[in-house]
Amino acid sequence: MQFINKRDTLVTESLNGFLRLRAGSELARLGGEAGLNVIFDPSHNGDRHVAVISGGGSGHEPAHAGFIGKGMLTAAVCGDVFASPIVDAVLSGILAVTGKAGCLLIVKNYTGDRLNFGLAAERARALGKKVEVVIVADDIAIPGLRQPRGVAGTLFVHKVAGYMSASRCKLEDIAKAARHVAKSAVSLGISLSSCTIPALGREDRVPKGKAELGLGIHGEPGVSLIEFESALHASTLLVEKLFAAAPKAGKYAMLLNNLGSTTALEMGVIANDILGSSQGKKIKYCIGPSPAMTSLDMHGFSVSLLPLSAPVEKALTAPVAIQAWPGVAKVGAIAVRKIRAQARGKPVKPSADLAFSQAIAAACGALIAAETDLNQLDAKVGDGDTGSTFARAARGVSHEIATLPLADRGATLAELGNIFARNMGGSSGVLMAILFSSAAVRYKSDADLVSAFRAGLKQVQFYGGANIGDRTMVDALAPALECLEAGQGLAAAAKAARDGAERTAEMEKAGAGRSAYVSSRNLVGHKDPGAEAVALLLEALAKTAP
Amino acid sequence: MQFINKRDTLVTESLNGFLRLRAGSELARLGGEAGLNVIFDPSHNGDRHVAVISGGGSGHEPAHAGFIGKGMLTAAVCGDVFASPIVDAVLSGILAVTGKAGCLLIVKNYTGDRLNFGLAAERARALGKKVEVVIVADDIAIPGLRQPRGVAGTLFVHKVAGYMSASRCKLEDIAKAARHVAKSAVSLGISLSSCTIPALGREDRVPKGKAELGLGIHGEPGVSLIEFESALHASTLLVEKLFAAAPKAGKYAMLLNNLGSTTALEMGVIANDILGSSQGKKIKYCIGPSPAMTSLDMHGFSVSLLPLSAPVEKALTAPVAIQAWPGVAKVGAIAVRKIRAQARGKPVKPSADLAFSQAIAAACGALIAAETDLNQLDAKVGDGDTGSTFARAARGVSHEIATLPLADRGATLAELGNIFARNMGGSSGVLMAILFSSAAVRYKSDADLVSAFRAGLKQVQFYGGANIGDRTMVDALAPALECLEAGQGLAAAAKAARDGAERTAEMEKAGAGRSAYVSSRNLVGHKDPGAEAVALLLEALAKTAP
Repeated sequence: MQFINKRDTLVTESLNGFLRLRAGSELARLGGEAGLNVIFDPSHNGDRHVAVISGGGSGHEPAHAGFIGKGMLTAAVCGDVFASPIVDAVLSGILAVTGKAGCLLIVKNYTGDRLNFGLAAERARALGKKVEVVIVADDIAIPGLRQPRGVAGTLFVHKVAGYMSASRCKLEDIAKAARHVAKSAVSLGISLSSCTIPALGREDRVPKGKAELGLGIHGEPGVSLIEFESALHASTLLVEKLFAAAPKAGKYAMLLNNLGSTTALEMGVIANDILGSSQGKKIKYCIGPSPAMTSLDMHGFSVSLLPLSAPVEKALTAPVAIQAWPGVAKVGAIAVRKIRAQARGKPVKPSADLAFSQAIAAACGALIAAETDLNQLDAKVGDGDTGSTFARAARGVSHEIATLPLADRGATLAELGNIFARNMGGSSGVLMAILFSSAAVRYKSDADLVSAFRAGLKQVQFYGGANIGDRTMVDALAPALECLEAGQGLAAAAKAARDGAERTAEMEKAGAGRSAYVSSRNLVGHKDPGAEAVALLLEALAKTAP
Repeated sequence: MQFINKRDTLVTESLNGFLRLRAGSELARLGGEAGLNVIFDPSHNGDRHVAVISGGGSGHEPAHAGFIGKGMLTAAVCGDVFASPIVDAVLSGILAVTGKAGCLLIVKNYTGDRLNFGLAAERARALGKKVEVVIVADDIAIPGLRQPRGVAGTLFVHKVAGYMSASRCKLEDIAKAARHVAKSAVSLGISLSSCTIPALGREDRVPKGKAELGLGIHGEPGVSLIEFESALHASTLLVEKLFAAAPKAGKYAMLLNNLGSTTALEMGVIANDILGSSQGKKIKYCIGPSPAMTSLDMHGFSVSLLPLSAPVEKALTAPVAIQAWPGVAKVGAIAVRKIRAQARGKPVKPSADLAFSQAIAAACGALIAAETDLNQLDAKVGDGDTGSTFARAARGVSHEIATLPLADRGATLAELGNIFARNMGGSSGVLMAILFSSAAVRYKSDADLVSAFRAGLKQVQFYGGANIGDRTMVDALAPALECLEAGQGLAAAAKAARDGAERTAEMEKAGAGRSAYVSSRNLVGHKDPGAEAVALLLEALAKTAP
């Protein structure tokens, strides 16, 4: 199953989507012939600049059309999925962009591509065009093979040739440099799956616990099936083989290519493993991790290395405005900054206020005493831990009551918020912490406990998302605060909280919190345990208050 | 199976890989605490610019750390996979980048994120920081839901807020604009698979032929399971629902988000379907297709729409140097250019040369007569069609012999190349076309048939990859050409070709062509049919030659 319409028109439709967006630059296609997918930069001046043309089978996106733009490709000739384009398509592409400066064809080393691009090149020469062909054979999967495959290292050739074309170098010089890059690039891939070929599906080829090493980018099986141990093992294996095969140099550029469906999370781990390895020290630049030369949705990656020389470095690192080109990052050490001491909270200075301390102790005592009852209530409408959660918070506060800055009510509110955050756990822990922390902030500018808690409740409702009537602690807290705001005293507030808590038993739907997942049938007749906790707490406070 | 090392350190390792690359800009992380993944721009001046902070669970890469940079995010606070970061991490992030200008927290609407970012905001306020919080709830999967999820539309908020911060707007104004964008963005996703949760695997939830509509980005099932018909059907469905839900506007920006493992080929088809639809006309800008807010490796995509106003358009389209931001493409018509007439070949003017015509006819006759023999030979070492391939070419030439420009040998060679390309088929057809086309080019500058064919053979070897001794037609052609070059005449050349063809029977390994896949045991004792064809052809020519 794939997001396609017709298999036959897949590549054309997909390229049309790309063309509608123009990918930030002006692109055109040749038209009129079914199946002819030639995309090019119509602003290219073929008399002043060498045309750099690549292409091959589709299914490797963003290669090749994605790399069209000043400083990389002038045109891409796209075949069907994993199939070389026909000679006529290549020839049309050459003729569309090639002027007096000539053109360079960059061809991955597959028989079909070599022959079709080759004949097109000969035909173009017969028509009087200057054409050079460079064949890329960077795959090192099969040692000693006379005709290695062309894989992701081809991107290095695109970039260097594209830079030289933009710099108005001559065809002969570009071809020479491109051949040098093609010869010195090495690539190797590893995969945990094959790819899904449109209308055919995915071959379930790689057994669990194994990885294919040295796979091709057209679904060809890997050269060997190895045990898959870890990202580190796979990365190290690849890099060691690559450095053994690469021409010796002081520094290298690496292309870290996502073959398709490897997650960005995994690609980051792989980058970390490679660049953190002993061999990784030789890597000065990294291109990617990014999908560059993919194999449809293959779950794997390839690494390509290119030895650096001054001209190669200059060409490779020159910026281009091509969206698919991930840029060239200079590899560096991880910058770590210290966490500001503020974030850890500063120690508070204890102070005394007997009445305040007694009130807090009474509230804590009430919550600790209600642990089992609240748990039983919560078992009916939630996950049965409200009692333990509030009791844990209360025990935490009791334990630290002597260290509280009680003479400073604002500071005490803030400290209580911190204790809830540290001890209480769960969403209600955070909500209680928000209530007290916000109240503390308000208290600083307006030393009134009632308006402080009103400010706190506002934030609880904002972050928690609960309104009155949603079967939460808000249903007890809000009416209690209203009483206090009306100057009715703690006893009236406790009564209002109690009434509010009782009303939750009639509410058929919870608008927030865990009870939101519980059906009406199981809710009606049972109070919300959070609202009940608030009622109990206020009742305890009312008893101790002077 | 995934490319990871340890589940516990996955996010930290992955972000470290990202930090080693610095993604083209300078990034730092807060350090010292296990599991604290706060990434930020250390060059941010918090007194001059509002800090724009986002984050949430990981598994949505490149969101959120990938969008750090001038003009988007100042910091990203990354939780574990699909889990909100803890309060302390968020607070540390706020304190690391927030100066006198204050900070804006952009929070996706999930209880965990709301509470942890919320408490951190309150704590930061308690520490004297100016903090504003905007909650994004752009998902329209469940109509009428009071707390819709925050999904890819969050990127719109990042971009607009980031632009305003870079432009030194005030916190209050940025928060107001961010809330407006958050309120007016709508998003919807569709998927053909769930995602692979690290160390858990992929739930095989979506039956073949079905698609999940309105899925979440944490593996939550889609709101409905629909019949999957085609990319067009899926795209149209999404876009219609989105336009019905979006605030009315003249023009919209679209974010086309790859949820993970959808191939670029599919994403192109989807872009084409959406932008080509009647509703698509209202889309002025497209961001992507690109992985932006992924759900690990989910095979799906989401579409987000944002109504455009002048200030939103300005903020959204302002360029940023952030690799993961795919840029904003102005949607346009597909530019189609005509194929140059040259590419189709120009008609040739027939002319006569009796001797030349007789030689060609004799060669054709010999190949047609040898069809069965050559097929039988090929059946032993290849796929049994060499005879038919050469006979088809010969019949093609015979058929067109009266139309050839025989008086002009160069033009005739070129025309023969064209006939081979049109009629012969397979690799040998292209190779024969290359031989004759290259020979024709050489003949233009040096009217000598022998050196023309030498030039042609050189190209055949370059594109075909065969040397002498590789069991191919080169083994007959090369010695024949050597005789002719030595002035020994056609009879000697035919004898050399014959000897060369006979020698292929002793060759144990084919270095190119289809016989390369055949074992020595099956090769030895049988001549290469291509070499035999060349020998037969030259023998026929030698008989007719004067």
